[in-house]
Amino acid sequence: MRAARYHGRADVRVEEVKSASVGPGEVRIEVGACGICGSDLHEYAAGPIFVPDGTPHPVSGDRLPITMGHEFSGVVREAGEGVDDLAAGDRVAINPILSCGECRQCVEGNYHVCDSIGFIGLSGGGGGFAEEFVADAEHAVPLADEVSLAAGALVEPLSVGFHAVRRSGLQVGDDIAVFGSGPIGLSVVQCARAAGAGRIIVSEPRDARRERAAACGADDLVDPTATDAVDHIAEATGGGVDVALEAAGVGATYDAALGSARPGGTVTVVSIWEEEVTTDPNAVVLGERTVTGTLAYLGGPRADEEFGDVIDMLAEGTLDPEPLITDRIGLDGVVDEGFEALLDEDSDQAKILVEP
Amino acid sequence: MRAARYHGRADVRVEEVKSASVGPGEVRIEVGACGICGSDLHEYAAGPIFVPDGTPHPVSGDRLPITMGHEFSGVVREAGEGVDDLAAGDRVAINPILSCGECRQCVEGNYHVCDSIGFIGLSGGGGGFAEEFVADAEHAVPLADEVSLAAGALVEPLSVGFHAVRRSGLQVGDDIAVFGSGPIGLSVVQCARAAGAGRIIVSEPRDARRERAAACGADDLVDPTATDAVDHIAEATGGGVDVALEAAGVGATYDAALGSARPGGTVTVVSIWEEEVTTDPNAVVLGERTVTGTLAYLGGPRADEEFGDVIDMLAEGTLDPEPLITDRIGLDGVVDEGFEALLDEDSDQAKILVEP
Repeated sequence: MRAARYHGRADVRVEEVKSASVGPGEVRIEVGACGICGSDLHEYAAGPIFVPDGTPHPVSGDRLPITMGHEFSGVVREAGEGVDDLAAGDRVAINPILSCGECRQCVEGNYHVCDSIGFIGLSGGGGGFAEEFVADAEHAVPLADEVSLAAGALVEPLSVGFHAVRRSGLQVGDDIAVFGSGPIGLSVVQCARAAGAGRIIVSEPRDARRERAAACGADDLVDPTATDAVDHIAEATGGGVDVALEAAGVGATYDAALGSARPGGTVTVVSIWEEEVTTDPNAVVLGERTVTGTLAYLGGPRADEEFGDVIDMLAEGTLDPEPLITDRIGLDGVVDEGFEALLDEDSDQAKILVEP
Repeated sequence: MRAARYHGRADVRVEEVKSASVGPGEVRIEVGACGICGSDLHEYAAGPIFVPDGTPHPVSGDRLPITMGHEFSGVVREAGEGVDDLAAGDRVAINPILSCGECRQCVEGNYHVCDSIGFIGLSGGGGGFAEEFVADAEHAVPLADEVSLAAGALVEPLSVGFHAVRRSGLQVGDDIAVFGSGPIGLSVVQCARAAGAGRIIVSEPRDARRERAAACGADDLVDPTATDAVDHIAEATGGGVDVALEAAGVGATYDAALGSARPGGTVTVVSIWEEEVTTDPNAVVLGERTVTGTLAYLGGPRADEEFGDVIDMLAEGTLDPEPLITDRIGLDGVVDEGFEALLDEDSDQAKILVEP
């Protein structure tokens, strides 16, 4: 079967690899769609970061070359011995979290902050930029009938937004600001809307991305290159938002998020960072603000906790994958039409789906 | 009457000032004892910071020169018209928070994060380094009979520790690390002990301060100049503390506090900062840690909320002011025996009480 494998920085090859056999407890899945994530771009442009280079990943046992792609859906084609609750033909989303099951966080059920945290498609264990995928059945979460395979590929990034909104403590009626409206920012906006947020203000420099934020439910759009976002937010909300969510990952938005939260408010940091930030801790202390990190989503082995909620919300139409999807390409196009297109500074793309 | 007034950086003068008259709703208090706080030292060495220099403070209406001292107790000598619940002879601690009563935070009862927050003794309105003090009776919180005037001067810094521990979300049994054991770090240790903390680890480079932390209930003392505090804490707690409290106010302890919290743990920042820090937000994101700021204590007009709790705990003996008090001096000594002694790099002092 064919798969896009990461051999090193700027070296992703679509090549023929041997199909894995299906062992006990495992399933073979024909990949339906797999989204390209910002993490994939980081690995391609600046990695290896999450991709195990020297030492194999402690959970997957793999090191590069590894098959990429961790936001994906598919159809079960073969179920191994002992797999009772999945059968050929079942449509599933993949929960890519790799956790050790033994550290303190795993023992407490917080697999997503496992000491050895990894992700299928980044840390080994196969991936979604491939014709097929074999893994422990516990990674396969059934899709509702109403949820397409394309929407199924969005379950992962929508779960990131869903978890971020839950971590933020957002309560019905809270005014919020979202910094950055790439796919994760858009997921946050949709989940915040679902959570009953009051005014949703999105700060995003790119026109096309601001428009998408509006389509996802934002009430108020700020172009921070033209307007001081912090001043605008303070004025629009009478002193700051209850919750600011940072989904851009640069020093300027870190400080803007802190500056836009009201005294007693919360800043939830969703981005993964490539560099340190310089910040004044008095912004946290003097207004008794809270900064909270959020990573991935709850759920480890057979974990449909937050994936299941997101699938339900997609089935009901509460969440809408359409504004996030801006292109659909084949496996052979993953580098040129995928990674390179998204890395283009003039790109207006959001989520590009690879359909192998 | 005599008072120590701040005229500018390194310019505090003990001088004769006119006694204020007691208006309706006000009380005259003979000062019993007033502690010297780190904030006083900041003003003296690097100010004016909180002290209003150009524009008068919006609540006090004062600008420098102002009488210093905000951690104090005393005896009511005169109660103005309409003051029904205080009478001559009553012993009180002073809640120095100056709040506007009109901003969003005040309306919501969070006077301590008022948009115009100020403190008696820093922002005008009189102060405790003086023979007497006249202010609205709402600043006077009655002391229990068991609480001495010296202990009454510690109610303010102990309330800072009490509020910090509450803000941290510390639950009974939680392991904690405290960075810095000056008077606020010691207050935090005592309040954490009262809150049922499990293991209390204190990181502090000075020998005398570590010994005081032990006297306040710390279980485990680390000298960070000899031992890597983060490694030690990780080993001692099996992966990090539930709550780290930062009470030193330098970049190294900010990062050490973040590094010592377990995944999912909390860092509570108690310090006021003189400079920015450079930090990796991934320390917050990847372990889903929470950083929360804490300022002062709850309670505005006639607020005995947290002051009242601390006074009760002093009366019961749950909190002990003795390990914090290292010297008692007269008003004339406030600069030489007070500020200068505390600013001496070789100082082993904790709290110096001025007894006018």
